[in-house]
Amino acid sequence: MSERLAETLKSIKPLDNIAMAAARNRQDELTKPRGSLGELEELSIRIAGITAKASPKIEHKGIITMAADHGVVAEGVTLYPQEVTRQMVFNFLNGGAGINVLARQINARVVIVDMGVIGGFAPMPNLICKMIDFGTKNMAVGPAMSREQAVDAIESGIDIVEQEYQKGLDIVGTGDMGIGNTTASSAIFAVLSGKPVAEVTGKGTGLNNEQLNHKVHIIEKALEVNKPEQQDALDVLSKVGGFEIGGLCGVILGAAKSRIPVVIDGFISTAAAALAMRMSSQVKDYLIASHESAEAGHKSILEFLELKPLLRLNMRLGEGTGAALGISLTEAAVRTLNEMSTFSDAGVSDIQ
Amino acid sequence: MSERLAETLKSIKPLDNIAMAAARNRQDELTKPRGSLGELEELSIRIAGITAKASPKIEHKGIITMAADHGVVAEGVTLYPQEVTRQMVFNFLNGGAGINVLARQINARVVIVDMGVIGGFAPMPNLICKMIDFGTKNMAVGPAMSREQAVDAIESGIDIVEQEYQKGLDIVGTGDMGIGNTTASSAIFAVLSGKPVAEVTGKGTGLNNEQLNHKVHIIEKALEVNKPEQQDALDVLSKVGGFEIGGLCGVILGAAKSRIPVVIDGFISTAAAALAMRMSSQVKDYLIASHESAEAGHKSILEFLELKPLLRLNMRLGEGTGAALGISLTEAAVRTLNEMSTFSDAGVSDIQ
Repeated sequence: MSERLAETLKSIKPLDNIAMAAARNRQDELTKPRGSLGELEELSIRIAGITAKASPKIEHKGIITMAADHGVVAEGVTLYPQEVTRQMVFNFLNGGAGINVLARQINARVVIVDMGVIGGFAPMPNLICKMIDFGTKNMAVGPAMSREQAVDAIESGIDIVEQEYQKGLDIVGTGDMGIGNTTASSAIFAVLSGKPVAEVTGKGTGLNNEQLNHKVHIIEKALEVNKPEQQDALDVLSKVGGFEIGGLCGVILGAAKSRIPVVIDGFISTAAAALAMRMSSQVKDYLIASHESAEAGHKSILEFLELKPLLRLNMRLGEGTGAALGISLTEAAVRTLNEMSTFSDAGVSDIQ
Repeated sequence: MSERLAETLKSIKPLDNIAMAAARNRQDELTKPRGSLGELEELSIRIAGITAKASPKIEHKGIITMAADHGVVAEGVTLYPQEVTRQMVFNFLNGGAGINVLARQINARVVIVDMGVIGGFAPMPNLICKMIDFGTKNMAVGPAMSREQAVDAIESGIDIVEQEYQKGLDIVGTGDMGIGNTTASSAIFAVLSGKPVAEVTGKGTGLNNEQLNHKVHIIEKALEVNKPEQQDALDVLSKVGGFEIGGLCGVILGAAKSRIPVVIDGFISTAAAALAMRMSSQVKDYLIASHESAEAGHKSILEFLELKPLLRLNMRLGEGTGAALGISLTEAAVRTLNEMSTFSDAGVSDIQ
C-alpha cells in the first residue's frame, strides 16, 4: 500500500459524538412528535456526526461520475457494445443523461471523470482525465489491472474529492459508467462476501437467463484464474475490479477523511464502498446508501454490508441517479433539523 | 348528494391513453437501458396520462394542508392536548413546521386551510377559512358531523383546489393537522375495508399499549353507536370522519377533475383518499401514494386500496411532509422524461 493511501485511511475518524448529541437534542425539541420524521431524523443526526457540526449545512452538492471500460466485455457478458461507455461520457458532457437531469433538479454539479475509457478523449473543460489505461484487461484470463494501477485509481479518486472539496463540497454522490461493470462488481461482491457468484450476479442492462448463466460462469472463471485474496481489497480490485470502481473507492475514502457525507448510488458504487469498507473500519459511518437497485444481488450485498437503503424504486441505471435522489432526501433531513421551530419558540404545547 | 359534488364526480375521466403511449415510447428512446429508471418511468407515464400531455410539466407545486379539531379527543385517545391543532396552524403560518421546511426545499407553496379548528382565527392573509364548525362532535356518542357538513367539507376542498388551479397548479400534495385525527382515520378504514379496528389502528403521536387498547375500544364504540354504511362514503365521513378529512377528500376529487396529479401524504390523507375512491372509481389513477407511514395499519390499508407507496421512511408526522418528498420524486420522474436525450439525438448505440 502506498503512503498516500495509508495516510488517508489513518485520517478517517469516528463520528463526532458531541455534534450528534446536540443534533439529537434539537430533533427532540422541534415541533413534531419525537421520532415522527423517522429515518430523516436519524439521518440528520448522522450527518451532524459526519460533519462534526450540530447544525450541518448542505449547500454545495456534487456527484462524481466515473467512467471506464472493462476487458471482460470480450467474453460476451453485456448487451450494449463497449463503445457506449465513451458515447455516454459525451452524453454526460452535453447534459443529456439521466444524472444530468436529476442533478439539475437538486442543484448539484456533476463531475465527470475518465478513469480509463477506450478511445480516450481530447482535453475538454468539463472532463477530468485520470485515465489509468484504455480499459482493464480481461479478468477471465488474468488480472484486470496491476496492483500499482489499483492504487493509482484509488488515489485519483482521493485527489478528485480533495479538489472538489476546495471548491466547496458539503455532500458528495458517487456514480459510474462502464459497459461490463456489473460483472466486475459481482466478482468483487462474491470475493468479499464469500457468497456464491450466482447469488450476487444480475442481468445488468438486460441479459436473458442463458446470458446470465454465461456471465456467472465467466465470473467464476475469473475468480478461479486470479484467486483474489478476500482480506486484501487492493488484491481484489486489481484482479477483478475496474478503474472507475477503484476511483469511486478513492472518492469514498477521501470524502470520509474530509468528513463529507457520501451518498452511494447502486450496484457498482456499492462494490466501491465494499472495497473501501474492507480498507477502513470507520468508513461505513460516512456512507448513505441511496437505494436498493433492481440488480439481483444488491439487496443481499447491502444486507451483508449492513447498509440500509433510503429508496427502493427498482432503478438500475447507475451514473449516480439514485445518489441524486438520496442527496435530496439527506438535504430534507438536514433542513428539518436546521429550519424547524422548537416547541418553545413556536409556543406549541409539548408533552411529557 | 349535492349537485355540485355529483357533477365533480362525473367530471373525473380516465387517464389519457394517447399521452401515455407517447410518453412510454419516449421513455424507450431515452439514453438508458429500457426500464432502468424503474418506478420513476412508470410514474412519468402515469403523469402523462393524468395530465393528458405527453410531456407534462411540473412547475407550479402546491401542498394543501387542512386543519380541524375532533370531538373524540374528549375520550382521551391522544397524548397532545387539543389546543396543539390551533398552535400548529400558527406554526404553519410562521413557516416553522416540518411541512414549511420541506415545501421550501422543493419550491412548493403551502396552502393552509382552517376546516374547523377550536378557537378559530382572526382573518389572516395566508390562512384560508373554510371552517365548518369548531371541531367535530364526539363520535363515540353520536355522529361526528351532519351529512350536510360532510358535503360542505368536501365542496370546500373542491373550491380550494379550483382556486389554486387558477393560480397555476401542476401537482398538489395533501396534508393534515388535527389532534385526534388518526382515531377518525382508523374508524374510516375499519368501515371501508371491513378489517378489524385493531388491525387499522396505531399509536398516533405515541400512545402506549394500554392507551392504544383504549383508542381501539373507543373506535369500536363509535362504529357500534353510529353504524356507518360501508357503501356510502358521505355517511362514513359524517359519522366517524373529520372536517379536514372531508376537505382533503374534496381536494382529491377536485384535482382529479382538473387532471392534476395528487400526491397523498400518510395515514390521514389516505383516509381522505379512501373516501374519494369510494365515491369515484376513476380517482385512484390520479393518486400517487408518497409514503408508507410508521402508523400501524397504514401498510395494510395501502395494500387494500392497491396504492403503492414511493417511500418507506418510517415517518408519521403528517402535515403533508411525506407528500413533499413524493412531489420531489414525481418531479424527478417527469424531468427525466422531458429532459433526457434520446439515443439518436445523443449518438449513443442502442440495442435490439
